[in-house]
Amino acid sequence: MISRQQLIQQIKQKKSFLCVGLDTDIEKIPAFLRDHPNPIFEFNKRIIDATRDLCIAYKPNAAFYEKHGVKGLQSLVDTYKYLPKDCLSIIDAKRGDLGNTSEMYAKAFFDEASSGMSFDAITLAPYMGRDSVDAYLAYPGKWAIILALTSSASSKDFQYLHTDRGYLYEAVIQKANTWAGADRIMYVVGATKSLEFVNIRKLAPDHFLLVPGIGAQGGSLEDVCRYGMNKDCGLIVNSSRAIIYASNGEDFAEAARAEALKVQQQMQVELEKVGII
Amino acid sequence: MISRQQLIQQIKQKKSFLCVGLDTDIEKIPAFLRDHPNPIFEFNKRIIDATRDLCIAYKPNAAFYEKHGVKGLQSLVDTYKYLPKDCLSIIDAKRGDLGNTSEMYAKAFFDEASSGMSFDAITLAPYMGRDSVDAYLAYPGKWAIILALTSSASSKDFQYLHTDRGYLYEAVIQKANTWAGADRIMYVVGATKSLEFVNIRKLAPDHFLLVPGIGAQGGSLEDVCRYGMNKDCGLIVNSSRAIIYASNGEDFAEAARAEALKVQQQMQVELEKVGII
Repeated sequence: MISRQQLIQQIKQKKSFLCVGLDTDIEKIPAFLRDHPNPIFEFNKRIIDATRDLCIAYKPNAAFYEKHGVKGLQSLVDTYKYLPKDCLSIIDAKRGDLGNTSEMYAKAFFDEASSGMSFDAITLAPYMGRDSVDAYLAYPGKWAIILALTSSASSKDFQYLHTDRGYLYEAVIQKANTWAGADRIMYVVGATKSLEFVNIRKLAPDHFLLVPGIGAQGGSLEDVCRYGMNKDCGLIVNSSRAIIYASNGEDFAEAARAEALKVQQQMQVELEKVGII
Repeated sequence: MISRQQLIQQIKQKKSFLCVGLDTDIEKIPAFLRDHPNPIFEFNKRIIDATRDLCIAYKPNAAFYEKHGVKGLQSLVDTYKYLPKDCLSIIDAKRGDLGNTSEMYAKAFFDEASSGMSFDAITLAPYMGRDSVDAYLAYPGKWAIILALTSSASSKDFQYLHTDRGYLYEAVIQKANTWAGADRIMYVVGATKSLEFVNIRKLAPDHFLLVPGIGAQGGSLEDVCRYGMNKDCGLIVNSSRAIIYASNGEDFAEAARAEALKVQQQMQVELEKVGII
């Protein structure tokens, strides 16, 4: 369990607000690992060993494990158990359902006795409203990370609809702000939306924002920091493919470390720029 | 694989548009089954055997299986394999993500070679737009069932927001109508919203609507039919708890059958009323 204060402490200590996204795709990992009995876990293990001092969070993307059915889920459980306890563990699951179903998903991802896994945080889709979030908040100290503004082109389909409470993504933030505070809720805001950060910071000045879209998706770290950083940093910036697939040779873990180090050093500059460290 | 025409045929043949929801909760199944090596699958198997001639679809709710981690997912795979091929198999997963992640979820639920499961249809959350749906439509003949108006009180949080294209749920239907036709897309509309069916039928006259909320959640079948039925029936009405937990004794399967039969007979009346059969 990582509290808001512990998260801020980790950021200052590691001079980093990097989240390594474990979107581990069997077709993209080095060929020599594929004969391993548990190749996805083996890959993750080596990535984690190579990056754990450079990042403050890990985020396995559930889809990449579910793709392989039972065997894939076992790799996710193994990965969960291997995650360093000083890093925030985020399951990127984007669940969202009625109250009684949300309770079951909460057990799947937050209750180790039930499922073998107990992540610190989960990403959630807001469409079904408060019922999609409450069951997770019932676990003391755990985090609900709610989709606000995502990074793909099709985020415009609905998130930018004009509503009587502003854009839909603004209405989501305003409403979810009433469900719990910045110590329990974060928002997902894509890095490709850097100008919107100004707007989002008006609505959620204190919240941590989970920011995917750096690297492969083309967002700029400098812009995200300029417009999105708050006095506690308030950003967890995710990079998946650019780090974990930096090389597909035998040196993949070293290459991932080199890439993570590059991002960490940029982050250090940004943290120093505003006097957080 | 069940096409629109086959679905309509099944409805006429079975005089039913019932979907049995397999929200199978280990804490609610009869005590004598709990010592079974695969209790959730054993329960489902007996429910399926007892109801397959009375319903046209089965809908396992992924959360209830994921709750138990690897073991639960194995029960879901076993259940998938046991589902009768003449019934539409719907995985109630409410996924919704970026394109490259949606492709992975599509493999999880639509590609048996990858995951052990290949359902005919999946429920999807629309918040992230078209990317959340396209990857599933890429599987010929399979169905995307998009959340429009859900049945819980908190559906009001966002689905009834006034947007410049009507209520949010109306904007979702209008936009998703442009992604594929009534032969590939259905919408989820809660049974507790019967007056809104009139409105929804203006936007989606030909689509099948998946309607949860009958039974335990208090929706009226008669109202749903009055306002929501179209010339092909156009409704798949789900009941979960009221059927599968009709008894928690040794007679649970017979009790489930009796309950399903009651609903099927009401459905027959409704189908006869409008001359579909």
